[in-house]
Amino acid sequence: MLSFREKLAALSQKNNSRVCMGLDIEFEKLPKSVQSKNDPVFSFAKQIIDETHTLVCAYKPNSAFFEAHGEKGMRTLRKIIEYIPNEIPIILDAKRGDIGNTARLYAKAVFDDMGADAVTLHPYMGIDSIEPFLNYSNKGIFVLGLTSNPGAKDFQYLQIDGIPLYQKVAEKVAEWDSRYYNLGLVVGATRPESFDIIRKILPTQPLLIPGIGAQGGDIRAVVQATCAIPAALTLINASRSILYASVNEDFAVAAARAATALRDEINCIFSDYN
Amino acid sequence: MLSFREKLAALSQKNNSRVCMGLDIEFEKLPKSVQSKNDPVFSFAKQIIDETHTLVCAYKPNSAFFEAHGEKGMRTLRKIIEYIPNEIPIILDAKRGDIGNTARLYAKAVFDDMGADAVTLHPYMGIDSIEPFLNYSNKGIFVLGLTSNPGAKDFQYLQIDGIPLYQKVAEKVAEWDSRYYNLGLVVGATRPESFDIIRKILPTQPLLIPGIGAQGGDIRAVVQATCAIPAALTLINASRSILYASVNEDFAVAAARAATALRDEINCIFSDYN
Repeated sequence: MLSFREKLAALSQKNNSRVCMGLDIEFEKLPKSVQSKNDPVFSFAKQIIDETHTLVCAYKPNSAFFEAHGEKGMRTLRKIIEYIPNEIPIILDAKRGDIGNTARLYAKAVFDDMGADAVTLHPYMGIDSIEPFLNYSNKGIFVLGLTSNPGAKDFQYLQIDGIPLYQKVAEKVAEWDSRYYNLGLVVGATRPESFDIIRKILPTQPLLIPGIGAQGGDIRAVVQATCAIPAALTLINASRSILYASVNEDFAVAAARAATALRDEINCIFSDYN
Repeated sequence: MLSFREKLAALSQKNNSRVCMGLDIEFEKLPKSVQSKNDPVFSFAKQIIDETHTLVCAYKPNSAFFEAHGEKGMRTLRKIIEYIPNEIPIILDAKRGDIGNTARLYAKAVFDDMGADAVTLHPYMGIDSIEPFLNYSNKGIFVLGLTSNPGAKDFQYLQIDGIPLYQKVAEKVAEWDSRYYNLGLVVGATRPESFDIIRKILPTQPLLIPGIGAQGGDIRAVVQATCAIPAALTLINASRSILYASVNEDFAVAAARAATALRDEINCIFSDYN
């Protein structure tokens, strides 16, 4: 069986894509014709997946969008995960983090029960909050490094002897990865000043990069600094700009068009630097 | 309607208790006779609540223990929350943290859908990851400050101009609380050196203190430093030492005995200092 990292590299190559597609699906944003269907969120996701699965390197459902609807939402998330073709890595964006005994149960929930290939985690509680996930050697773990939101400035830029906290986190992730080989980092596309230093610390490890599109990150800066060598695994995430490219009947085709455009834009910039 | 803080103060006074009881229920740890029942985790929780509800100031179910069992687990958690008498504050220990748009959905999941009175959150992503929860003015928000687990040393003690990160977090929580009046901090009982400084920063705000019992924190140090004035809200959490005080038929009575002993020990130390 392929590890998450191998699965990601294989599909990224096959689809020639660094696009990770966020599945942050909200009922209120669905086309009217879909809203009236049975399990509308699944119906929408199914059509989106049918049209985009050859264009992405991974799908990233965000757990909150499903948890907000209780058990029904979790059932929909499970159906979506089961529907996604097996060769496509699924990153469950759950941003968990708890003491070892509890982290073990979150790992069980995410990997065993929900069947995701990778997960996002908070660094704040340190190694024993992450280790139960790392012990799944064929899974992927993305630790939050430097996030794309305004509140990142509250703590992530605090200086420790001249080094910002997010860089300390990246260094720990590199240290842990040298033992476990299954870590990556989340770095916001809105933070171009950080890309060079983070790629030096984590030269080939997967970087999950949200924040282009609705949040305004610069694609050129991301690609230039984080995809510099072909072996470097970079996942550039887009959710709303693809999912809701059209609010009409043609939403799935429009999503494929938006995903294609993003994939090509990334690849075009990449070829400029290689 | 009472706010979380008022509800907590009222019940703590009525039950004369600073014991927050963790509901971290694992099927494998239940008495054999309970394991064979229909919805054994709920059956166990029900009997525990029946025997202990006059002894605690709050219940704190940890979400991971239920999520690990998928939709079935979430249904059990919901039944437990509904069964707990209305006057008892329920802290859902979920340790969430995501960007604003997503945090809004986690807040919906925890407060609207699941019906908890309070929640635990990660500080790492800053104010916009916390604000959607703060906007529920009658709910309580506990931000992770200094945690009780070994991994706390990886980041929480990093020094920023001579001040550890956890103290920076406590200061931010105090700043936010001056606008929202509904914040508290999580501080591990295994970190007695931090109690005095944290109580100075957050003089009366709720401190949620895990880490006594199985994790070995010192109750005397906790009480002395954090309950010093009667208006200070302190929740001393115990889970396993109460839930599994007996593995036999008498588990609920044994739990009540353990909760009573802990409540009295805390109150006895408190009266020594007042």
